[in-house]
Amino acid sequence: MKSRLRMIAALVYLVASVGLVFGQTNKAEGAVRAADAAWLKAYDTKDVQKAVAVLDEQGSMLMSNAPIATGKKAVAKLIAADFARSQNLTWHVDKAGVAASGDLGYTSGSYEMSFQDASGKTVADKGKYLTVWKKQADGSWKVLFDMFNTDLPAA
Amino acid sequence: MKSRLRMIAALVYLVASVGLVFGQTNKAEGAVRAADAAWLKAYDTKDVQKAVAVLDEQGSMLMSNAPIATGKKAVAKLIAADFARSQNLTWHVDKAGVAASGDLGYTSGSYEMSFQDASGKTVADKGKYLTVWKKQADGSWKVLFDMFNTDLPAA
Repeated sequence: MKSRLRMIAALVYLVASVGLVFGQTNKAEGAVRAADAAWLKAYDTKDVQKAVAVLDEQGSMLMSNAPIATGKKAVAKLIAADFARSQNLTWHVDKAGVAASGDLGYTSGSYEMSFQDASGKTVADKGKYLTVWKKQADGSWKVLFDMFNTDLPAA
Repeated sequence: MKSRLRMIAALVYLVASVGLVFGQTNKAEGAVRAADAAWLKAYDTKDVQKAVAVLDEQGSMLMSNAPIATGKKAVAKLIAADFARSQNLTWHVDKAGVAASGDLGYTSGSYEMSFQDASGKTVADKGKYLTVWKKQADGSWKVLFDMFNTDLPAA
């Protein structure tokens, strides 16, 4: 009888633990989705410092037609150039995920924007992105890698 | 005396646990680096099936100038087009990382290749990539997202 009770207790504990892990994963996935949305909001202010604040200290931006930029100073330059060139940028998440340990995650989705080409003509662009998020010591999520490229055929 | 022994035992346990976690993280980081190298090897065979075998069932490839491709069938098409177009592709990892839980990781680095442009001229290209890896039930690492873009100025 005692051993049956122990088994039941063990089962209850197991189910509760699994539920907790899944619950935490869903909560963490919500957290990276929220971080992604907050980053779009920061990006939309066209304030370089606000945009860069979402970056991990070792964060990198991998932009087409430019070498990789790592660290806030290098990424700030890239974002400033992007702000000067692009208009009406928006993006939305299609997929998000977080490791079981809750320290590493990703978001991926599509973007739309317009920009002025070399001749000054406004061109509509659409494409996709992939962001890797790292949880910080204070519990916030910051961008470790951000990358995007166009869906449009090569010019 | 007893409580001091318990404290020492607890400390030893703590240090051993931390060591174990770090050891596992380094081992896991080595595993995603190895998976990245194996993928390059598979890619270099120019055998689409071998290249696609490294992909997670839900894996996506985010290639410039094409919509996102998700799943082995869609990615196979993209890789076949890439094989037909590109030559002498090589890449190397600069950064790799794995979540503490060992189920999610990333590799990032640079690539070099050459390709024939629309006029048939061979062009040297270099750029960067970001790959998100997901550990499978069998312990192998598969590509959940792969993305790359060029460093060269827009044409």
